[in-house]
Amino acid sequence: MEKSAVPRIVIVGGGFAGLWATRALASSPVQITLVDRSNHHLFQPLLYQVATAGLSAPDIAAPLRHILRSQRNVTVLMQDVAAVEPATKALRMADGSALPFDYLLLASGARHAYFGHDEWASQAPGLKTLDDAFLIRRKLLVAFERAELETDPARRRAWLNFVVVGGGPTGVELAGTLAEIARHTLKKEFRRIDSGEARVMLIEAGPRVLSSFPEALSEKARAQLQRLGVEVRTGAAVAAIDDENVRLGEESIPTRTVLWAAGVAASPLGKSLGVPLDRAGRVYVEGDLSVPGHPQIFVAGDLAAVSRDGKAVPGVAPAAKQMGAHVARSIRARLAGKPAPLFRYRDYGNLATIGRMAAIADLGRLHLSGIFAWWFWLVAHVFFLIGFRNRIIVLVNWAWSYWTYQRHARIVLGSDAQNHPTERSRN
Amino acid sequence: MEKSAVPRIVIVGGGFAGLWATRALASSPVQITLVDRSNHHLFQPLLYQVATAGLSAPDIAAPLRHILRSQRNVTVLMQDVAAVEPATKALRMADGSALPFDYLLLASGARHAYFGHDEWASQAPGLKTLDDAFLIRRKLLVAFERAELETDPARRRAWLNFVVVGGGPTGVELAGTLAEIARHTLKKEFRRIDSGEARVMLIEAGPRVLSSFPEALSEKARAQLQRLGVEVRTGAAVAAIDDENVRLGEESIPTRTVLWAAGVAASPLGKSLGVPLDRAGRVYVEGDLSVPGHPQIFVAGDLAAVSRDGKAVPGVAPAAKQMGAHVARSIRARLAGKPAPLFRYRDYGNLATIGRMAAIADLGRLHLSGIFAWWFWLVAHVFFLIGFRNRIIVLVNWAWSYWTYQRHARIVLGSDAQNHPTERSRN
Repeated sequence: MEKSAVPRIVIVGGGFAGLWATRALASSPVQITLVDRSNHHLFQPLLYQVATAGLSAPDIAAPLRHILRSQRNVTVLMQDVAAVEPATKALRMADGSALPFDYLLLASGARHAYFGHDEWASQAPGLKTLDDAFLIRRKLLVAFERAELETDPARRRAWLNFVVVGGGPTGVELAGTLAEIARHTLKKEFRRIDSGEARVMLIEAGPRVLSSFPEALSEKARAQLQRLGVEVRTGAAVAAIDDENVRLGEESIPTRTVLWAAGVAASPLGKSLGVPLDRAGRVYVEGDLSVPGHPQIFVAGDLAAVSRDGKAVPGVAPAAKQMGAHVARSIRARLAGKPAPLFRYRDYGNLATIGRMAAIADLGRLHLSGIFAWWFWLVAHVFFLIGFRNRIIVLVNWAWSYWTYQRHARIVLGSDAQNHPTERSRN
Repeated sequence: MEKSAVPRIVIVGGGFAGLWATRALASSPVQITLVDRSNHHLFQPLLYQVATAGLSAPDIAAPLRHILRSQRNVTVLMQDVAAVEPATKALRMADGSALPFDYLLLASGARHAYFGHDEWASQAPGLKTLDDAFLIRRKLLVAFERAELETDPARRRAWLNFVVVGGGPTGVELAGTLAEIARHTLKKEFRRIDSGEARVMLIEAGPRVLSSFPEALSEKARAQLQRLGVEVRTGAAVAAIDDENVRLGEESIPTRTVLWAAGVAASPLGKSLGVPLDRAGRVYVEGDLSVPGHPQIFVAGDLAAVSRDGKAVPGVAPAAKQMGAHVARSIRARLAGKPAPLFRYRDYGNLATIGRMAAIADLGRLHLSGIFAWWFWLVAHVFFLIGFRNRIIVLVNWAWSYWTYQRHARIVLGSDAQNHPTERSRN
């Protein structure tokens, strides 16, 4: 392709950072290509609701090309990127083709990571994509079905033990919701087991859950989890996971369902930049979010390692949106021949939901927990959902779940072979 | 297991026949075990809406054990059945265990069939389960994405040719909706292709579409399809399907997307009964729907070959529900020491939807087509959906789609490797 007069902006990743950058360039005289391997933008803060059968995929996801249909300076491509080639200012695609750019925003995010134990991936799925969410949903629902079929008491017990590894926001959301499912949603639906006897264990290696919050709020979160029926085990590191057990030091917990929420690793595309990365694979960026030595390449969102005032900017949606919008400003400044501005992070507070009517909120001087924090969380999340229809549907679903304790998306899809590749007890 | 005093009724299949039989036995002094390989009842008449991204899975499916939670004489098991063993009056399960019965209802339905060309299955998926619907949804949406990426005009053309094989209700629904997606839903969302240039071809070997309707209504259906943008080819039999073409006699149509709606084969469990089957594998049943020589075994729904007044009872939801309810009556009669009644089919009419505001209805002396038939179809289908929440959500979704031409469930899930196993053009 020949170099065109209109600057070519390529954006990799249609998450919060990439999509906000794209929108912020809507009225700029540039041609934007947004590349994503999936066809949709995902509202990740509610992904745990899809995994726990409270919401359906379209409630929290929308096709990127539909969101951007009216922005005529954007072409959306559903394609896999293999590498960035900074020397030639091009992306190398998985199909071998090249996509040249004048400016690049790399916002390909992060996946969950197993800290050198990739062999745990098949037993303990993590939660980053919609496909992950459907796999976890299937695992949870099928575990109760297997318990109902199992006649051996010890095996039945193992099907009713659920272990969530990692006491961060995702682990807490999964454990709290899972306890609600066992104690309320499925109550009276089984004839041979009592779903309320299921044990939900939340394992955290550090001293407390939700450690990004002040200590007093962490304690409130722990108390709310216990009230919902979750056994919280802090200071407990996972030593091994196999098809039938999780081992913590000397102790073995028999379980067929382990969910992983303990760590993230940045997208491997960061590596192809050839610049220093932090331990999680994030790119150390300059003050304007550009890559050292490559002023035309920017990184934003979970792939960027950014600190402000000595504190790391957290991997949350508001930070990603701010970075995305900032990169748009930086590109506009460069195109105008001006220096790019420095990125400033505005921290509007920290919210975590735990379960039905249970949450904590750290809003600077104001700390909330319990029902008020939950309402605050609900309003904030529904407000930020993309699409008018989605907001209505999610509210209807929530109201319905609230009154009936039901979770409408309890539909098991896919085959056993596909999702329990290591399962050995069936013959 | 020892024989209990309470009669053991085993029902295989939680479709319309099995579920209606189960409910009709709610107040009988029996113990019922309902076995299904999936965890949900599926409202199959709207399955094409999931395949074409208009509805989500939970809109048309509900967990069987949730539907039956208050019926205390039912145990629901999510399990695969390998065979019926009439001699020992037991089911053999896929895991090797046995499930004894005093009365059995076999209602395991039908799958799509390729008339001896099973090798077409990977190129031309059919539509019977939710997993089928998601595979088709992915195929349709990804075809447009590939066309947008393709630079070679002939290959791009092939990605935009859609072939639906079979002019029965499912084929007509798929073709009509697909034309709407290409011409309206995706309009203005692509930058390199014009989705409106997509060709949708409906191939039918017989002389007309919807051949179970009177000829005049078939003609109206053809006209409505053509108005929506579907090319209808009757009298055209498929000779071959490969990754890049469909062959009709001498003619080859280059296409990457073929959907199969041309035939059904009954569940293979029918074979294990050891009695005569019809060509499609359906069981010839007695007048009370029992199996010849096995008065304790009944067959209902799509697996039963039933004729009344010289006409085959069609494989539609109302017929399956009537058969299920009849088997419940027959079992109650036997338990009371009375002869089982004969099954009578009440034909309330025949409805088929074609697309936006397009449908036909054969209500005996009253024939409808177009917008009136479509409203009639809509009301009838929403009315029969299970669950109050589902009816509301489906109506909201339909109203939304109607005004905006949007289909909210345009979310591509799963990986390419999984769903395009034979695709060769990517490297």
